[in-house]
Amino acid sequence: MSRLWDKGLPLDELVHRFTVGDDPVTDLALVPFDCAASAAHARMLEEAGLLPAGDGARIARALAGLRVQALAGEFTITAAQEDGHTAIEEALTLELGETGKRVHLARSRNDQVITAMRLYLRDAVFALAAATAPLAASFVREAKAHADVPMPGYTHLRRGMPSTGGLWLTAFAEGLTEELAALAALDDRFDRSPLGSAAGFGVPLPIRRERVAELLGFARVQQAVVDVQNSRGRYELALASWASGVLNLLEKFLWDLSLYTTDEFGFIKLPLAFTTGSSIMPQKRNPDVVELARARCREMRGLRSQIEQIATGLPSNYHRDFQLLKKPTMQVVRVTLDVLDVTRRVLDGLEWNEAALAAACTDEIYSAHEAYRLAGQGMAFRDAYKVVGGALIAGTFAPDRAALTASHIGGAADLGLEATEAELAALDQRFATRRAAFDAALENVFGV
Amino acid sequence: MSRLWDKGLPLDELVHRFTVGDDPVTDLALVPFDCAASAAHARMLEEAGLLPAGDGARIARALAGLRVQALAGEFTITAAQEDGHTAIEEALTLELGETGKRVHLARSRNDQVITAMRLYLRDAVFALAAATAPLAASFVREAKAHADVPMPGYTHLRRGMPSTGGLWLTAFAEGLTEELAALAALDDRFDRSPLGSAAGFGVPLPIRRERVAELLGFARVQQAVVDVQNSRGRYELALASWASGVLNLLEKFLWDLSLYTTDEFGFIKLPLAFTTGSSIMPQKRNPDVVELARARCREMRGLRSQIEQIATGLPSNYHRDFQLLKKPTMQVVRVTLDVLDVTRRVLDGLEWNEAALAAACTDEIYSAHEAYRLAGQGMAFRDAYKVVGGALIAGTFAPDRAALTASHIGGAADLGLEATEAELAALDQRFATRRAAFDAALENVFGV
Amino acid sequence: MSRLWDKGLPLDELVHRFTVGDDPVTDLALVPFDCAASAAHARMLEEAGLLPAGDGARIARALAGLRVQALAGEFTITAAQEDGHTAIEEALTLELGETGKRVHLARSRNDQVITAMRLYLRDAVFALAAATAPLAASFVREAKAHADVPMPGYTHLRRGMPSTGGLWLTAFAEGLTEELAALAALDDRFDRSPLGSAAGFGVPLPIRRERVAELLGFARVQQAVVDVQNSRGRYELALASWASGVLNLLEKFLWDLSLYTTDEFGFIKLPLAFTTGSSIMPQKRNPDVVELARARCREMRGLRSQIEQIATGLPSNYHRDFQLLKKPTMQVVRVTLDVLDVTRRVLDGLEWNEAALAAACTDEIYSAHEAYRLAGQGMAFRDAYKVVGGALIAGTFAPDRAALTASHIGGAADLGLEATEAELAALDQRFATRRAAFDAALENVFGV
Amino acid sequence: MSRLWDKGLPLDELVHRFTVGDDPVTDLALVPFDCAASAAHARMLEEAGLLPAGDGARIARALAGLRVQALAGEFTITAAQEDGHTAIEEALTLELGETGKRVHLARSRNDQVITAMRLYLRDAVFALAAATAPLAASFVREAKAHADVPMPGYTHLRRGMPSTGGLWLTAFAEGLTEELAALAALDDRFDRSPLGSAAGFGVPLPIRRERVAELLGFARVQQAVVDVQNSRGRYELALASWASGVLNLLEKFLWDLSLYTTDEFGFIKLPLAFTTGSSIMPQKRNPDVVELARARCREMRGLRSQIEQIATGLPSNYHRDFQLLKKPTMQVVRVTLDVLDVTRRVLDGLEWNEAALAAACTDEIYSAHEAYRLAGQGMAFRDAYKVVGGALIAGTFAPDRAALTASHIGGAADLGLEATEAELAALDQRFATRRAAFDAALENVFGV
Repeated sequence: MSRLWDKGLPLDELVHRFTVGDDPVTDLALVPFDCAASAAHARMLEEAGLLPAGDGARIARALAGLRVQALAGEFTITAAQEDGHTAIEEALTLELGETGKRVHLARSRNDQVITAMRLYLRDAVFALAAATAPLAASFVREAKAHADVPMPGYTHLRRGMPSTGGLWLTAFAEGLTEELAALAALDDRFDRSPLGSAAGFGVPLPIRRERVAELLGFARVQQAVVDVQNSRGRYELALASWASGVLNLLEKFLWDLSLYTTDEFGFIKLPLAFTTGSSIMPQKRNPDVVELARARCREMRGLRSQIEQIATGLPSNYHRDFQLLKKPTMQVVRVTLDVLDVTRRVLDGLEWNEAALAAACTDEIYSAHEAYRLAGQGMAFRDAYKVVGGALIAGTFAPDRAALTASHIGGAADLGLEATEAELAALDQRFATRRAAFDAALENVFGV
Repeated sequence: MSRLWDKGLPLDELVHRFTVGDDPVTDLALVPFDCAASAAHARMLEEAGLLPAGDGARIARALAGLRVQALAGEFTITAAQEDGHTAIEEALTLELGETGKRVHLARSRNDQVITAMRLYLRDAVFALAAATAPLAASFVREAKAHADVPMPGYTHLRRGMPSTGGLWLTAFAEGLTEELAALAALDDRFDRSPLGSAAGFGVPLPIRRERVAELLGFARVQQAVVDVQNSRGRYELALASWASGVLNLLEKFLWDLSLYTTDEFGFIKLPLAFTTGSSIMPQKRNPDVVELARARCREMRGLRSQIEQIATGLPSNYHRDFQLLKKPTMQVVRVTLDVLDVTRRVLDGLEWNEAALAAACTDEIYSAHEAYRLAGQGMAFRDAYKVVGGALIAGTFAPDRAALTASHIGGAADLGLEATEAELAALDQRFATRRAAFDAALENVFGV
Repeated sequence: MSRLWDKGLPLDELVHRFTVGDDPVTDLALVPFDCAASAAHARMLEEAGLLPAGDGARIARALAGLRVQALAGEFTITAAQEDGHTAIEEALTLELGETGKRVHLARSRNDQVITAMRLYLRDAVFALAAATAPLAASFVREAKAHADVPMPGYTHLRRGMPSTGGLWLTAFAEGLTEELAALAALDDRFDRSPLGSAAGFGVPLPIRRERVAELLGFARVQQAVVDVQNSRGRYELALASWASGVLNLLEKFLWDLSLYTTDEFGFIKLPLAFTTGSSIMPQKRNPDVVELARARCREMRGLRSQIEQIATGLPSNYHRDFQLLKKPTMQVVRVTLDVLDVTRRVLDGLEWNEAALAAACTDEIYSAHEAYRLAGQGMAFRDAYKVVGGALIAGTFAPDRAALTASHIGGAADLGLEATEAELAALDQRFATRRAAFDAALENVFGV
Repeated sequence: MSRLWDKGLPLDELVHRFTVGDDPVTDLALVPFDCAASAAHARMLEEAGLLPAGDGARIARALAGLRVQALAGEFTITAAQEDGHTAIEEALTLELGETGKRVHLARSRNDQVITAMRLYLRDAVFALAAATAPLAASFVREAKAHADVPMPGYTHLRRGMPSTGGLWLTAFAEGLTEELAALAALDDRFDRSPLGSAAGFGVPLPIRRERVAELLGFARVQQAVVDVQNSRGRYELALASWASGVLNLLEKFLWDLSLYTTDEFGFIKLPLAFTTGSSIMPQKRNPDVVELARARCREMRGLRSQIEQIATGLPSNYHRDFQLLKKPTMQVVRVTLDVLDVTRRVLDGLEWNEAALAAACTDEIYSAHEAYRLAGQGMAFRDAYKVVGGALIAGTFAPDRAALTASHIGGAADLGLEATEAELAALDQRFATRRAAFDAALENVFGV
């Protein structure tokens, strides 16, 4: 057994390490949001007469400074501090003395953590929207550019029907737009302020939960104080479900690329920058980026499972178990942003082998369409099927390809991308407006 | 090895059993929807001149009859027919001869199946909404009725704060209302017609996809034909994610009940009808229904995993793999409806032991509130904490309970249930309107 | 909302349906095992003087008859009886009067259920072993038969190296043999008798747990009575983990088949009996059986998740939640047996297109091997790599294919199948012996 | 949207970050094993005449030095090097010039990585065994020490039967011993050398795979070269399945502790070092360590899912997707070791409240035992049940507790711990022997 595994840690050290976990790292991402939430809380306390006049503003100003530090990557959390909330409190106290400690009046660590996380999640939603929309737009653009490139349409992974590059890519343009609309619903869902619920049972002081909500740019208050603690992990899981939905969609595109770039299919070449050579096979270029992106799609389902496991299985109210939610949630955001970004860049650089695509569109794949056409002219479909089948066997099948293009909405001759573009633009606008309001609230909450 | 396991099936029998799977059973639930979709398709074909005048109407009328049979439980699918779609086609042909076969013009089995499933999912959404809303309403009613029943508030499963029956139950009223709003977003998402996408590449005939969408009560067309096949499992998974979200919420309530009805807590008694005696322990009443409902919540997460597994991991377009989606999807709907129903009945019949609850609300649980109160009067929280701690040790701690009630929104003195009731009513109205329109479309689509 | 969803069931009917669940169906598979376990218990009771002389034997004889009925499919469980255990008890009492009821002395429903399930699991292990071994043997046979069929070796799904049909198929022969050895370890693990643990705390009567273990063919007693209840779901999950491991392995083979039988690869043709035609595309044969088998592999991971969810998350001892374990466990066994059987039949019937395989083995795929060969003669690998690269570019690369065959163990020239065959034979023998002993115990336990 | 999210990375930087991933961190744990495997490979090459005389030994000596560095935490992997294998190669070349590069002859990155990982897994198995055995031993010791402490036995989380501290703890002693035996089976399974399989198709050079296996302490060669790549993730998943099985077991103990230490149960007190105070509730001690350990049990199931997702769903042979397996695998080992260690320390320090336990053992819980006793004397169980039930109602039930102790194996009076101790000792011995051989091989492989 190797010396890799430490043994016999002193008890206090073991307990410290076990309870602190990854907080000093994960909390760095929460500090800017905690600063904002704490500032809103301090200002409300002052307004409600729960802090001496001027103290709320003073605390908020100090928090503004800490937030700037955190965003610049200059804020640190020591292992002794254990988490970001303590680190902020210590920094505040260092700067303001007793006043710094007063920020913790009328709240508890519980609603403090969940508010910082809620703001983090809202911010992540905006970042994800800002990465999804351009990818959808790229699919629209590429679908138009390849609208007339013939391509076999596969069913059961066998060539079955005539299709086009446009039909293929439109699927992802429309699918991603649908996901973006689903993200807008999530955005609405997350838009409720948990602050003021304290440890899950409120506080017997005249705080104004509506006011902190307003200061932080929330549209509403998550009223039920027990539900606030019961919602630990709920929004993290909802975001992970959304993320895995998007990656389930992209997984298909990445799998398609993995196949279409093989020697055997040969429809598409990956941009050189996205492939790697082999250290031992001089003739090879490997699609590592596509494979890793595909693997991230599966990994995402595992991360979602992890969040689901941690979030569920417990009675109501707070349990320390929930601390473990932070790390996989942040992985979810990071990985999804990366895959969205990478996929867009890959898509933008694909090299199409139109000759290979054309060669793969043999007459056979028009047979069902031709039978449909004959049936559309009144022949019983069974007869049409036989006529085509006979011609195929006799080698006389020569479909009129132009006549066999689907002209209905969504067909090769009418991709319907204008509707998708319009929907995308509206969603983009919606997110831009809400994001601006959110950003403004987080800038202005400090009152400086 | 027991004789339970068949061995050495003839090849064709094995392949038949393996490919048919559970379709003859699961498809029974799809037949009414397939009849409606087929009727819309037939009427559109006639309107578009793709069927002889009158044939569309004739087919639709025959389908109306089959739907009535199916709803009455009198439609059967034989193993030889393999699935419901074939069974319908055979019944149609039996009744109408060649005309019956024409309904399959300009579509494929692929868009036929997915349309029936889409309608099934929409119907399930309405059924789930109709089961969720009354449960939320029951929580509202019970929260009001127990607004003033004192109850310890737990953190880390230890008594920490004063709480009330109202606070506890409001959490579920509000949480379920949030879920109902999320279901409305799903309802919008599912409201797009896949019909006319054929095998995923459209058909070269002048069909009108907008028309069948309209006849079936869809607000829009799922345009991208490749996306239709790529969405196999997507909506099933979305519904399962929603269902497991709701059950994650109820799991907490059921776990609470499991604890609160123990000898040790003793806060609540289950209605006798929901307990079972022990065959060997004369003194016992066991909470089997609560335990089974709780287990269903975990099972749901497993069913969701199953759907996720089947739906993912494949390149674009249709693969036979997707056939396995139907069974777990139907289990999801069945189980969720049952748990919603059972939980509501349990909730309605709870017997509260107010004496035990009051006894559990010892002075200690008011200590943080009292420290807050002192701090709110200007004492440093650290000092207030010490004052209270000292009084606890000295045995002189006697909190003024009335003064320690949280009066902010969401606190014990202001549960904020009017807002929840208003939101519930609006959602209920929304679902009722849309359900009525959906039901009407499925009645009227036959044109009879 | 359709009339599919029942509403407003009377309370007692709802509770009955909810608590009975699928037991009347699932328990049919447990009845033969419950009969055996009950017979062992009755005989032990008589031996221990806890039943009047002769009663144990009389009960055992009656149970032998019920078991014959059950194996013949003639035993029924009514909804009113709720489960198989009650059905057996009622049948016994009908036949033997008061004596029939005495079989329940000194045990509880808890250890009765878990013993029946344990025997079911042991039987399933033997059935799975009996399906795995011939599949492994088929892979051995086919690997030998195609040892010299050239085939490109893929990495990153790109042709990279020379390989053979033998190398490909040997992987599954060896992998399955490894899984069979893992199954033997499970067999040992399951080989412990839970009977006599009662409701998890034993019974204050002089029962002899070692004796019922012996009568039922168990090697040992699962001693810790609390552990017996804590192990609810443990063995089910262990079996599901094993099953999903085997199907993870076969998934690769099925995916390979899905690719190798495409138009683009064209290496292999599926036997006609395993493909289906298309209702609309006359030119197509679809690999439905392969796709469904592949989907079952993914479904299995979902079934395992379901079992895991139900089995975990609870404190010690019995909870009614565990009732839900039976159904997915039986699905696991059924599905795994089917996939093992189907895969073997597909494998046995594959038609190899040796010309296509040879054509795909272009000179390029020998480049790394050639560089290795040069490096093995003392040239620096970097130089060898350049020499080969240069020859590839110049079009002068002409590898000596015969010289490039790997001759080490596991290489194309030495598949090492004798060792695998020997291991398989030993495992087969091991399972045959133990299965015979198990079968004999279950025959003889009735003492008739 | 906050400035947290980087945007617009240059393409090469993005691709570099995306493909390198966490390798520079995760690979640090693999370096010592890669050094050993490379040394074995170099020595074999020299013996086979594939390296000049002396070069193998020289390379091995240099690798010995690198391993010492790595174990001392002084080896670094730069982002530019991308992974540990390159870092080792560069260090070797720096020290030995061209000779350093020769170590890569006749193998590929593929078998190099999988061999390092296999050795890591074997080492982890030994570390896990060394943490599991003492925990099992602690349970044995505590079970003996509390063999006579009365405790209610729960079913359905309700008091049902008399039990003891001994019965409770014996469950975990026996359960863990069973898991340790399962780990021994895994140890055997992992004991096969993949080295020499190259990229999955062998090498055309006279390497001796048996020899490197022997040098590295492997009992056998994983022969099938395609199976080696197909086994990517297989052993990682097997280990994660084992780990989650162990934590499923401990989850019950931790849940029990969470309940038994509540105010309501009050059976046990946690050692102070394992609780934390509340920042706002002076009266509270929270069981954070127990809750976090319980959460880790659920997290483990999520980590397992993540590994399963990454490892599955692909055709045969190597895909870059597998790179993502390393990180969650290392998390599995780390988390499991921590939970085993923490649980043991918690167990060792539990403070039992025997008065509370005795008070909870009311006469009622003896009712089934008493009925059994009467039935054992010949009274029909139904009558006995009625007699006891009547006495309970009449308040005259006074069971003879001493007479109601289960004396069969596994009952309160005969815990059977000697057998468990003997099995534990044998397993401990087995692991110690094999671990010593493994450690010796990894020390001696460098030949210095």
